[in-house]
Amino acid sequence: MTEHSPVTELPEGVCWELLHDHEFGRLAFHLADEVHLVPVNYAVDHQRRLVFRTSEGSKLLGLTMNADVAFEIDEYTETEARSVVVRGRARQLEGREADETDQLPLRPWVDSAKLNVIAIEVDEITGRHFELTRPWLHMRPHGGV
Amino acid sequence: MTEHSPVTELPEGVCWELLHDHEFGRLAFHLADEVHLVPVNYAVDHQRRLVFRTSEGSKLLGLTMNADVAFEIDEYTETEARSVVVRGRARQLEGREADETDQLPLRPWVDSAKLNVIAIEVDEITGRHFELTRPWLHMRPHGGV
Repeated sequence: MTEHSPVTELPEGVCWELLHDHEFGRLAFHLADEVHLVPVNYAVDHQRRLVFRTSEGSKLLGLTMNADVAFEIDEYTETEARSVVVRGRARQLEGREADETDQLPLRPWVDSAKLNVIAIEVDEITGRHFELTRPWLHMRPHGGV
Repeated sequence: MTEHSPVTELPEGVCWELLHDHEFGRLAFHLADEVHLVPVNYAVDHQRRLVFRTSEGSKLLGLTMNADVAFEIDEYTETEARSVVVRGRARQLEGREADETDQLPLRPWVDSAKLNVIAIEVDEITGRHFELTRPWLHMRPHGGV
């Protein structure tokens, strides 16, 4: 290594820690031939599945037709960013499996009816750490946003 | 309307304002039969395209094979969240078109070589505002994150 890279891979353990710490991410899924993207709040269950509730017809329909999904969380400060991307398969939980998710810390941020429980089984998890170079942040008069 | 809904649509003008204000989002794209998701930093150009630079082989290959993409930005406080989702088509800019993007406020957060310029032509833009109900935030001893 002759050069310092501003982008480094996160170890898998760190990726899982971040997934446990966060509760808000974005889900990408197929809907017919299109790719769609929605924000969701989620929890990680004891089988290391990502679980969320939804009331949305289109979201659910897409997952039923094609289970292939990607999911992302991220966080950043002025000097660094971290992003974790999961690839996996989504399926709707029914009956006892769905009931068991009541035990999860799956705290809905929005108080609306969300009747369907979806679990994403994780096939692949990758994370990256970015060193940020954003000199313009320091050029603002009051160091604002 | 008999019930107050915690989720409301954002007017298109507000969606565009948010897209202009932000510079960090997530891009969902097809790679063969799979959906993939990456964080990108971007700018909106004078044609209202979302423009970003990339050095990533896999990201670019996916966009070349299938231009259909989705893009998302979001922001949230303790009490509310806003999310804007764009659907569109991505294509690589070459020659003068690529050079013109040097004039954009497309400030790379990460200082690494990003040789390819991609523009997303927006077909559809939707945004939502969420009233958040997160009582647990107020139950923590120091009101921390």
